[in-house]
Amino acid sequence: MDAASSRRGRPAAHVQFSQWHRDRKLSGSAERFGESAAILLGDLCLIWAEQMLRESGVDHRSLQRAWPLYDAMRTELAVGQFADLTIDVRDLPSMDTVLEVARRKSGNYTVRRPLELGAAMSGCSDRTISGLGRYGETVGEAFQLRDDLLGVFGASSVTGKPDGQDLIERKATSVVIAAHTLADPPTRRQLAELMNSGDLDDGAIERWRTLIVETGAVEWIEDTIGHRVSAALSEIDQLRINAPLRAALAKMAAVCTERTE
Amino acid sequence: MDAASSRRGRPAAHVQFSQWHRDRKLSGSAERFGESAAILLGDLCLIWAEQMLRESGVDHRSLQRAWPLYDAMRTELAVGQFADLTIDVRDLPSMDTVLEVARRKSGNYTVRRPLELGAAMSGCSDRTISGLGRYGETVGEAFQLRDDLLGVFGASSVTGKPDGQDLIERKATSVVIAAHTLADPPTRRQLAELMNSGDLDDGAIERWRTLIVETGAVEWIEDTIGHRVSAALSEIDQLRINAPLRAALAKMAAVCTERTE
Repeated sequence: MDAASSRRGRPAAHVQFSQWHRDRKLSGSAERFGESAAILLGDLCLIWAEQMLRESGVDHRSLQRAWPLYDAMRTELAVGQFADLTIDVRDLPSMDTVLEVARRKSGNYTVRRPLELGAAMSGCSDRTISGLGRYGETVGEAFQLRDDLLGVFGASSVTGKPDGQDLIERKATSVVIAAHTLADPPTRRQLAELMNSGDLDDGAIERWRTLIVETGAVEWIEDTIGHRVSAALSEIDQLRINAPLRAALAKMAAVCTERTE
Repeated sequence: MDAASSRRGRPAAHVQFSQWHRDRKLSGSAERFGESAAILLGDLCLIWAEQMLRESGVDHRSLQRAWPLYDAMRTELAVGQFADLTIDVRDLPSMDTVLEVARRKSGNYTVRRPLELGAAMSGCSDRTISGLGRYGETVGEAFQLRDDLLGVFGASSVTGKPDGQDLIERKATSVVIAAHTLADPPTRRQLAELMNSGDLDDGAIERWRTLIVETGAVEWIEDTIGHRVSAALSEIDQLRINAPLRAALAKMAAVCTERTE
């Protein structure tokens, strides 16, 4: 289950399936059942999405242009998620690594590839497709940075997940890596302690959050999001597209990266 | 992970990924990592299989005949697995229910749908496709019954899983249901006790196996497998196909349902 998709205020699929299991008083572990059923639902969605595109009525030639991009999107998502699993937070991966994984597992399929798909299917020039690709990659990265901030500071009413979920899971997100990079040595030691400690209670999570803010990591991420959005807007300035389309793309960059959803 | 596919003497994907995690001394749970990585590999295989068929070079018209069967196969597999999750062994489902789920989650995608797919793509008549479908459904069911016997009595050297895995997992397989149906009242009480007990040691598994044999369930399943294979052979007798093809189908029915792999 992707982080972004479960930040919509409704319980994720595996939680709903677990409840279904409990309501029916079935035997065995409700958690295990919930996870298994959610995986099967994921398989069905993967199948149905491809089937819907194939049966959409879009002509054969446009579909032929779409499939390579569609396959790339699906494959790089799975590979990116795998890369995410192998990142060991104790090794403190570089910011470049963290952003590269974020691009592959989230930014590309959320923004870049869908744009390229639409452009390819409607017969846009290679120049336009590349420009939209660069815009999408940049917006996708800003989207992921916003998601990382929500994962640490978002209220559970907004994210639909426990407060500070990414800290509880010890995820090596851009926020955590930025804090480690910017921290002075004593703060860095405190951050490392929290990272390597066993169970974290609410107080520890709150202390961790405060330390992160004190390093200046939040401002740094906010600035980076701002720069990414500006870069994306320059990309669309260079595209040969009409004014309403340009305005829509600018709007989309804002919506994908704004502070609350 | 489907039962049949992991009975080949090699560790299943999640076990291999867990080992990979341990070998690299990564942080976090190796079991959890193994399961997550195996799920992603499953997603990739689902994507790649469809992509390979689409890019196989088979002409557009044959592919159009194949897709509905291909989609049905993938969808009914996921739905069948879900039905399998919801079967509560304590409710002792009927043999019909157990066989219906087995058909959907295993028999159809192992035997029936692949045959129909090949026949549809090579332009066979509807009559031939239906005949092959009935043959495939019957062989698929016999295949599943054999798999159920292996799940209870197969040596781990053959199945690649712990001895009596299906009993350990309290799966409501055809073997377990047949034993409950055929048992006299005192034996049925003993079977129910084992089914509802907590942890089962090797001695308890061995006792459960002995009780199952004593009910005559194994002979009953073996007879049923024999009847299914005979019925499948009658189906191919009625097909208008040449002798080598008929012999190949007869051979396949035997290979799918023989005692050891």
